[in-house]
Amino acid sequence: MNQNGLLILYTGHGKGKTTAAFGMAYRAMGRSWPVAVVQFIKGKWMTGERLFSKEMPLLDLYVMGEGFTWESEDLSRDQKAAEKAWEICEKLMEEGRHKLLIFDEITYAMHYGWIDVERVRASLRKRSSEQTVVITGRYAPEALIADADLVTEMKPVKHPFEHGYKAQPGVDY
Amino acid sequence: MNQNGLLILYTGHGKGKTTAAFGMAYRAMGRSWPVAVVQFIKGKWMTGERLFSKEMPLLDLYVMGEGFTWESEDLSRDQKAAEKAWEICEKLMEEGRHKLLIFDEITYAMHYGWIDVERVRASLRKRSSEQTVVITGRYAPEALIADADLVTEMKPVKHPFEHGYKAQPGVDY
Repeated sequence: MNQNGLLILYTGHGKGKTTAAFGMAYRAMGRSWPVAVVQFIKGKWMTGERLFSKEMPLLDLYVMGEGFTWESEDLSRDQKAAEKAWEICEKLMEEGRHKLLIFDEITYAMHYGWIDVERVRASLRKRSSEQTVVITGRYAPEALIADADLVTEMKPVKHPFEHGYKAQPGVDY
Repeated sequence: MNQNGLLILYTGHGKGKTTAAFGMAYRAMGRSWPVAVVQFIKGKWMTGERLFSKEMPLLDLYVMGEGFTWESEDLSRDQKAAEKAWEICEKLMEEGRHKLLIFDEITYAMHYGWIDVERVRASLRKRSSEQTVVITGRYAPEALIADADLVTEMKPVKHPFEHGYKAQPGVDY
């Protein structure tokens, strides 16, 4: 097993997946590592993460833009956006400038068939042994779980949205 | 249900509990919230979090000091340290200066009987409705799960320590 760069998966239906990935970014920056985050969803609002990252010189945040909501009528547009985001991920791995790369909620793009799982696996295998990659999202493909060094399933025990709670800035985004 | 301050629990045996809590700190600071973290364990080394937090004016980090390792021969010393840490938590909640408070790995102190669960519940109930409290650690007491607004169990699917992996700076601490 590679003692340097790891492949880490945070999956499952519970809350805390993206949050844990951002916590890893935070920890890595404490060690002065350059960190890249590619967010495949959550492009709709200015999240706390995005506001904070502006002040973080070590953090490069790529947020999938305009209309990338998985709710679009025109599915080919979503697919194109997902492909473009994945190309950014591949480019970042090739460049090798970042020691930690977070592909946030990329699993949905694989789940819906927008990105080919085998292509993702091949690119991950080619990456430098110095790079740790964190992948988050529900429905992580089995083949990726098999490749990963660390997999945690976030299991919802109690979820505030079940009780009519509305997402709040600062806590949820 | 209180729509402002939440009680959030990250428990279970999987990795990502403390990391998710730190991710929440990161998100909250993006919203300019003052954040307090009381770490009940992990006082043994300079973690990435500690290094990073030094540069974060919004973050107050309290790390339980010297010898608080749960491995001490003198158990009364561990108990005293846990009590002292809990007093800090209570004081922070009373002061009300922080909108997010993280009591990291406090569950162990309850699990081992160093801190009384009912005392913790009473203090949490008394806190300002503006305060969100995040509690992390394995073995979260049932009574606390009942009180919490959001509970996620981090379930290990695959854990690198099973395969002879050694914890590394920047990734694990």
